[in-house]
Amino acid sequence: MSTTLYTKINPDILNQLSAAVGAENVFTDQSSLADYSHDETEDLRYYPEVVVKPADTAAVSALLKLCNEKHVPVTPRGGGTGLSGAALPVFGGVLLSMERFKSIISIDTENLQATVEPGVITEEFINAVGEKGLLYPVDPSSKGSCFIGGNVAHGSGGPRVVKYGTIREYILNLEVVLPTGEVIWTGANTLKYASGYNLTQLMIGSEGTLGVVTKIVTKLIPKSEFSVLMLGSFPENETACAAVSAIFRAGIIPSALEFMERKGVEWVVQYNDIKFDLKDGINAFLMIEFDGNDMDTIFKDCEKVNAVLEEFGCTDVLFADTAQQKEELWKMRRTMAESVKSNSVYKEEDTVVPRAALPKLINGIKEIGSRYGFESVCYGHAGDGNLHINIIKAGMSDEDWKDKLKDGIAELFQLTADLGGTISGEHGIGLVQKEFMPIKYSEIHLNLMRSIKLVFDPNSILNPGKIF
Amino acid sequence: MSTTLYTKINPDILNQLSAAVGAENVFTDQSSLADYSHDETEDLRYYPEVVVKPADTAAVSALLKLCNEKHVPVTPRGGGTGLSGAALPVFGGVLLSMERFKSIISIDTENLQATVEPGVITEEFINAVGEKGLLYPVDPSSKGSCFIGGNVAHGSGGPRVVKYGTIREYILNLEVVLPTGEVIWTGANTLKYASGYNLTQLMIGSEGTLGVVTKIVTKLIPKSEFSVLMLGSFPENETACAAVSAIFRAGIIPSALEFMERKGVEWVVQYNDIKFDLKDGINAFLMIEFDGNDMDTIFKDCEKVNAVLEEFGCTDVLFADTAQQKEELWKMRRTMAESVKSNSVYKEEDTVVPRAALPKLINGIKEIGSRYGFESVCYGHAGDGNLHINIIKAGMSDEDWKDKLKDGIAELFQLTADLGGTISGEHGIGLVQKEFMPIKYSEIHLNLMRSIKLVFDPNSILNPGKIF
Repeated sequence: MSTTLYTKINPDILNQLSAAVGAENVFTDQSSLADYSHDETEDLRYYPEVVVKPADTAAVSALLKLCNEKHVPVTPRGGGTGLSGAALPVFGGVLLSMERFKSIISIDTENLQATVEPGVITEEFINAVGEKGLLYPVDPSSKGSCFIGGNVAHGSGGPRVVKYGTIREYILNLEVVLPTGEVIWTGANTLKYASGYNLTQLMIGSEGTLGVVTKIVTKLIPKSEFSVLMLGSFPENETACAAVSAIFRAGIIPSALEFMERKGVEWVVQYNDIKFDLKDGINAFLMIEFDGNDMDTIFKDCEKVNAVLEEFGCTDVLFADTAQQKEELWKMRRTMAESVKSNSVYKEEDTVVPRAALPKLINGIKEIGSRYGFESVCYGHAGDGNLHINIIKAGMSDEDWKDKLKDGIAELFQLTADLGGTISGEHGIGLVQKEFMPIKYSEIHLNLMRSIKLVFDPNSILNPGKIF
Repeated sequence: MSTTLYTKINPDILNQLSAAVGAENVFTDQSSLADYSHDETEDLRYYPEVVVKPADTAAVSALLKLCNEKHVPVTPRGGGTGLSGAALPVFGGVLLSMERFKSIISIDTENLQATVEPGVITEEFINAVGEKGLLYPVDPSSKGSCFIGGNVAHGSGGPRVVKYGTIREYILNLEVVLPTGEVIWTGANTLKYASGYNLTQLMIGSEGTLGVVTKIVTKLIPKSEFSVLMLGSFPENETACAAVSAIFRAGIIPSALEFMERKGVEWVVQYNDIKFDLKDGINAFLMIEFDGNDMDTIFKDCEKVNAVLEEFGCTDVLFADTAQQKEELWKMRRTMAESVKSNSVYKEEDTVVPRAALPKLINGIKEIGSRYGFESVCYGHAGDGNLHINIIKAGMSDEDWKDKLKDGIAELFQLTADLGGTISGEHGIGLVQKEFMPIKYSEIHLNLMRSIKLVFDPNSILNPGKIF
């Protein structure tokens, strides 16, 4: 896609934009353009030509209709917490911020469903349904600032996927504005759906390239009364990773199963003011949560897991009993990405493999790192086989970081693919991973994706330059 | 799509077919053509011109390549248990039976995954993984004869969706032969996936119109040790249906929650030699199953549910303790469709609504029936809001059955849509429901589906005449 295909914003288009969405929702001041020129992806910056903040479906429809006619690129943006650059306006044009779609429209306690707008912050939604005794279990680490619409766009996960399933199980129906301005509901407000191609599922994970989501119907489930959180300490990464699949083989499904490398914990302690007694000889941790309505059952599962952990050389198990202890441990895990960022320039990869392949993955990461001269710190949703690899620039020269590292990352993804996995489990492809897609997907496969894109967006105006 | 677009099978094409897939896999005898002219959809019959039974991916690829070049329609077929006519070769051509794809390639107890061929009978797969202590919870009533490939094609469900999620949560990756003959794997063998458009999810429920699935990677979970099955009896349909959503609101998620009308039970007793003491004044039943690894927890849930059932006027609760009692109750539910079929010509609709709307749905069904002069018997996966409506011809004239009933069914689907539901929860659209799709979906929506179809199948050779 060449930028020459796109029309630059000119005063005439700007006037029409204002007419379409309301002048008060259109921003061209330098400060706004700068604010929306980046997300959480590395240190990348791309400036939009105009920022638009509509507040309803009709305005989004009018905006897209106009931009489709004029061939103006539109980049939708949620909370701006993305790690793959999907919200970066690489061709300029319109940055469409969904931040004014902030309403939790309804929480239907009869049907255990909710209807929300995409600009609702994920944690606020979780809390709102929690007050009614209900659970929406999709809680990425960025839950305090990410939007539920961005979660849909990226197929986001979080720690509780391991028990409760992915976001795909919780999104029932979507109101979507197509790039041409038409509005559809993708499915029905039902738990099952066998009525033609599932456009709801196609929209999930499409990173804002097929349409702009303006309403979301979610499934909810009863919230468990109790939870217990354990932290197991291991001398080695490999044995901690090996314990993961053994836990499931013992017949147990925890409500979370997270892996953390020592260095990640060190940096959290250093940069996030979290107190934690980090013992010598400990190099890896598993954080394991159980939930349920019966403490006896939870304790039985804890005992079974304890036995598995010991078998894999776990030297110490900490139980977080109080709500505060649990919150501190979860904070440690959730703030790891930002702590790593505080320490050094870094790149984050989001590998996912079948879970028994985790030991091979982590050993492979370190081996590739030693050949390319990069350090790494890994953590993530080990129960799903999903490991976030933070590659640290540290002592690497700017040149190597810019030129040589790419080959190392390609090797990482080749390893991931060889282990039966793929390039991203929950962060998406966006801008920064798209060059690696051919490692996993054939040209035929990528062309199917490209052609589906053109079905929805014949003029390629919506979030161009992403995924493929 | 006009039949004139398609090439008839002639001796030359037949020779090339034999060369492509092996002459021993090509059948043109009248008996074969008759055997594959129908599935379980009403009494419909469409004869293929040739039946082909390849045994490997390469043969399917060669077949599709040839048929795509020659513009010969190909209708893929699983176990032939479909209720929407998706496997009927309405344009003649090639009937592609997947019955020789019968291998359970691997059950990976390390990763809790399996790789199977699409012609494996669902129950055989469930039993095979069960022997290893694992659960594949997708078990439609036809599990004894349907194929897992057909389940994927229809997004099939079954009673355990209510706790374990839909088939969409259990299908990780698919080997697919595209209509043009190329072979792709749609995704990765991972529990999470955020790497471009999710073609795995797009294939699920696409009813063999986008590609032919030749290998399936499934997720498995640990099997629970214990289960309890309850049967609650109700004087009225409406109160039984109303109890369904109340059970979830009480914080309980059963592993199955099925509704059955009295007449369905009567006919099972009459036609399937099942003993059941059907009391006067009882008109509806809820079958509720719990599973888990701890009997105390299960009993606590049973008690809570008991209280809910009483509140909704349940007069009697039967507990099935032994494996035999449980099997008999399940057999009653599973054989209901064939019992209805033994009784009368019928049509089956597969409505799904938000579960609290079930009372309105069942009352509406009876009201529409009384206006159009048809009887109905309803049963199904009430926990998912999924009700199978069996419309009984009984005393209806042939003329009314042929001409007038259609309007009644259209009213049923309009009611379903008005309640937030849709036309099919798990049986699919296939041939017989496609005329009703515009009740739920706009022309824009249907055109998106049609255009996606053409991305995969530019010559419309694969299962033409289905869905839209």
